[in-house]
Amino acid sequence: MLVERACIVGVGLLGGSLALALRNKGLARQCVGTARTATTLKKALEMGVVDEAYPEAERAVGDCDLVVMCTPIGAIAALASRIAPVLSKGALLTDVGSTKRQVVEVIEPLEGRFRFVGGHPLAGSEKTGVAHAREDLFENRTYFLTPTERSDLAAVGRMRDLVLGIGARPVMLSPDQHDRLVAITSHLPHVLACLTVALVRDEGLTPQQLEQGIGQGFLDVTRVAAGGAEMWTDILLTNADHVDSLLQRVAQAAEEVRLQVRKGAREQVLRWLEEAAQFRRSLGNQDDD
Amino acid sequence: MLVERACIVGVGLLGGSLALALRNKGLARQCVGTARTATTLKKALEMGVVDEAYPEAERAVGDCDLVVMCTPIGAIAALASRIAPVLSKGALLTDVGSTKRQVVEVIEPLEGRFRFVGGHPLAGSEKTGVAHAREDLFENRTYFLTPTERSDLAAVGRMRDLVLGIGARPVMLSPDQHDRLVAITSHLPHVLACLTVALVRDEGLTPQQLEQGIGQGFLDVTRVAAGGAEMWTDILLTNADHVDSLLQRVAQAAEEVRLQVRKGAREQVLRWLEEAAQFRRSLGNQDDD
Repeated sequence: MLVERACIVGVGLLGGSLALALRNKGLARQCVGTARTATTLKKALEMGVVDEAYPEAERAVGDCDLVVMCTPIGAIAALASRIAPVLSKGALLTDVGSTKRQVVEVIEPLEGRFRFVGGHPLAGSEKTGVAHAREDLFENRTYFLTPTERSDLAAVGRMRDLVLGIGARPVMLSPDQHDRLVAITSHLPHVLACLTVALVRDEGLTPQQLEQGIGQGFLDVTRVAAGGAEMWTDILLTNADHVDSLLQRVAQAAEEVRLQVRKGAREQVLRWLEEAAQFRRSLGNQDDD
Repeated sequence: MLVERACIVGVGLLGGSLALALRNKGLARQCVGTARTATTLKKALEMGVVDEAYPEAERAVGDCDLVVMCTPIGAIAALASRIAPVLSKGALLTDVGSTKRQVVEVIEPLEGRFRFVGGHPLAGSEKTGVAHAREDLFENRTYFLTPTERSDLAAVGRMRDLVLGIGARPVMLSPDQHDRLVAITSHLPHVLACLTVALVRDEGLTPQQLEQGIGQGFLDVTRVAAGGAEMWTDILLTNADHVDSLLQRVAQAAEEVRLQVRKGAREQVLRWLEEAAQFRRSLGNQDDD
């Protein structure tokens, strides 16, 4: 048993799945949860995701030795400030936010009674809400942990054990390394998918033309663009500098490719495509089955 | 029976699947094929994909009333010029190339003994080669036909019946409408996926860092970048003007988004993401299951 009583603040898909994993894998004896709506609280209790459910985090975190903030990124900093005074002595606080610098910068100065280690599991789905929570959501997934030089080593060790315990793979990065990496692998692709989708929208095609003219490839490549706009706004704005510089780099590379295509520079275009294809193949998983 | 004897020039995944569909669905009494390598010819015969196999198109097309050119785009124009003199009188010639203007422009002036209608099935897979050919590859897929005002209406009607016969959905567009549409839905996304992949490559991460740091989302979004570089070079260069102008539009839109992210313009970023998400959701198929 890693913890006696865990609190999941924000029992949605991620939080609910974490609660299920913590209890069912014997990592936490008890698990309480909070949610903003009565419907979610009821659902979480009914599904047996949590033992107790509260509408407010301040009332829920009191006796917990682990508190996981699973609220939207934009709400994490304010939440941490609110609960910091009522956290139990020695509690381990963590979050699951998709960007880490801002959260870590705001929360670390609040440390004292509690210890904080930032986290970000690469798990999730287009399906949101506690109804889709499942114990194995984190199985074999990367789970970033972003301790800093100020972090308590024992707290980092406990977070690592917790991540291993739920079946995920802990990967340690500094908050800035993390934000840079996900800017490339996730935030930029999201922006590019939205740009692509917007181009098609601006063609003003009829629903029938869209249905006929769009292949599976386009649907696959742009699927991420359907993600929640509120969440993605928070992600982009809390990682603005990396997103900014990446978009500049992409624009520059796109301009080079554009000019080569325009002048029919076959050898250059071929080499560029070949290098991209080779690297992509080296990453594996290029076929669905 | 739509045709007596069909010839598939280039029996790979597409050509082989077309041959299987034509014969097994009773659309062609006989189907002959050509391929550049002895291995492919042997395989196609062994699999029963074709009744006869030839190394050279000139020897194969003679008595055929349907000839489908399934060679790479870059080779179609030269192939058409070579076989034009030996095509049987009244033969229907078509191709499956991913861009249509250039092919149509070269082949239409050769018409006379034969009739040409350009085609482009939105079918395919990362798996290439006749070994993966299957009769149902075109089932419910869009199959573009790109007749012009010069096209023979009877030939267009036969192509339409053929497309319906193999279970695909015929969609008529002019060659330019076609090339513009696929530039947006396929060629631009391919370039963007390659640009994304190149950014990650240029980070110089270790294989372990790549494996740990890259989530399924990235692999999904960039899967197309693994496609054959030769084919994609042909596609981009034969659609250079549309690709050129789209890349300019994307660069402009990306710059607007970049500046909004940079100055933290929450409302604008949120609205942009929300509009993209709404449009993407309207296209359906945003969840894998």
